[in-house]
Amino acid sequence: MSEAVRFSVSLSEELMGGFDKLLDQKGYENRSEGIRDLIRDFLVQEEIDKNREVVGVITLVYDHHVRELTNTLISKQHDTTAEVISAMHVHLDHHNCLEVVVARGKGKVLHAFADGLIGVRGVKHGKLVLTSTGAELPK
Amino acid sequence: MSEAVRFSVSLSEELMGGFDKLLDQKGYENRSEGIRDLIRDFLVQEEIDKNREVVGVITLVYDHHVRELTNTLISKQHDTTAEVISAMHVHLDHHNCLEVVVARGKGKVLHAFADGLIGVRGVKHGKLVLTSTGAELPK
Amino acid sequence: MSEAVRFSVSLSEELMGGFDKLLDQKGYENRSEGIRDLIRDFLVQEEIDKNREVVGVITLVYDHHVRELTNTLISKQHDTTAEVISAMHVHLDHHNCLEVVVARGKGKVLHAFADGLIGVRGVKHGKLVLTSTGAELPK
Amino acid sequence: MSEAVRFSVSLSEELMGGFDKLLDQKGYENRSEGIRDLIRDFLVQEEIDKNREVVGVITLVYDHHVRELTNTLISKQHDTTAEVISAMHVHLDHHNCLEVVVARGKGKVLHAFADGLIGVRGVKHGKLVLTSTGAELPK
Repeated sequence: MSEAVRFSVSLSEELMGGFDKLLDQKGYENRSEGIRDLIRDFLVQEEIDKNREVVGVITLVYDHHVRELTNTLISKQHDTTAEVISAMHVHLDHHNCLEVVVARGKGKVLHAFADGLIGVRGVKHGKLVLTSTGAELPK
Repeated sequence: MSEAVRFSVSLSEELMGGFDKLLDQKGYENRSEGIRDLIRDFLVQEEIDKNREVVGVITLVYDHHVRELTNTLISKQHDTTAEVISAMHVHLDHHNCLEVVVARGKGKVLHAFADGLIGVRGVKHGKLVLTSTGAELPK
Repeated sequence: MSEAVRFSVSLSEELMGGFDKLLDQKGYENRSEGIRDLIRDFLVQEEIDKNREVVGVITLVYDHHVRELTNTLISKQHDTTAEVISAMHVHLDHHNCLEVVVARGKGKVLHAFADGLIGVRGVKHGKLVLTSTGAELPK
Repeated sequence: MSEAVRFSVSLSEELMGGFDKLLDQKGYENRSEGIRDLIRDFLVQEEIDKNREVVGVITLVYDHHVRELTNTLISKQHDTTAEVISAMHVHLDHHNCLEVVVARGKGKVLHAFADGLIGVRGVKHGKLVLTSTGAELPK
């Protein structure tokens, strides 16, 4: 495992005060953990912008009574060049389902895959969120 | 079930041409399906802004070797006032896990819940995405 | 000028009702104008994703008492390969200024230019927003 | 003026390495300036979420040949309860104009004001960006 190092940050008293207050509200235990999260978020944004391999989480809300919808969604998951890892199905009510599909791939491939799922008739709403595979993202 | 109605849209030839081209690229079968998706996306944004009950999908990337991390994440899922519906766990590699937590609640409660999970030591990256419960979102 | 054409959209009564209510809240005069805005927004997102020439509006909040800040910001505006069109300066209070810089270029160039300005010491906050040059965006 | 303080951050060597590389790419001169920007961005997001008074920059792309458009935009700027500070007009080409309107107010008021401008017939595209007034945002 990697060694821990330290560096020191110089900032105004007010900025540190504002930061501490917000960390406290959000339930952080210490300043270093807050700073590490800000840095990692900054790095993930860069991984995405550079079209590296990332993980996409696609959230779909749909009415499962629409004919052929479930089959179409499954075929599309088999046909994509993105690597589909897992999918979770949640019953929201009698009509509405939520499906969460997790896949790996380059950002552009994941965008095209998500567009293809969201465009299916009967899918009411869909969103794609990209995050890191973790491998490139240090602790 | 609800009845289908029609309305007609007036627009420039060029705007229709650009729209058709993009729908085709994204794999839509017809214009009405594209328009319905744009309208529903517009409505979901409003549900979120108005602090209605929505569904939150929280994506966490973390290193499961960090001591107590898994227990802390589970306790926080039991302690929130958001209604946690389901969670899915994906092994990304030897160290890195992806956890997707699905919960219902008002946008503000879901934000606070997600902040609490993302702030845990060992969680490398986290994102919250809000979508509709489907109930208020017509076909 | 281009000719107006019409097409008709089929959707559920409830979806049309929800759309009409939201258009009314937002002050739209008719449905066609709302649909055209949704379509154009969809097209602009695509122009940005495809790295076409777009317009960037960079908003900077800074304290003009920081030594050399104003000169540094001006030099950076002269040195970029983005085409800087115009800049507006607003006095927010005794210390704080808002500067809005408008430039044309490919999305990536505009991102790098904005990063360079936001990174200057004394700039407290900055954001880049991308929009269309209008030329590719039909009425 | 406020006094400068320091605190020290503990993190893995890899995370510091990734951060340094990205800071260098984005033209930052030192780590403290990078950290301060991340903290301020985190605080601004909170100011916006809490509906404090913020500054809104509204970007509009429109065709000035559309009848009555310019007058309508000006009336709406006079009628809003947001405090309109300044506006800048840029000629993009023979048809297309970019207008940047800067206003202060609570986030919700600025959203409604922007919606009203974007909804005007002839406005092809519009976006609102919120930032800090600077007053609450320490150096």
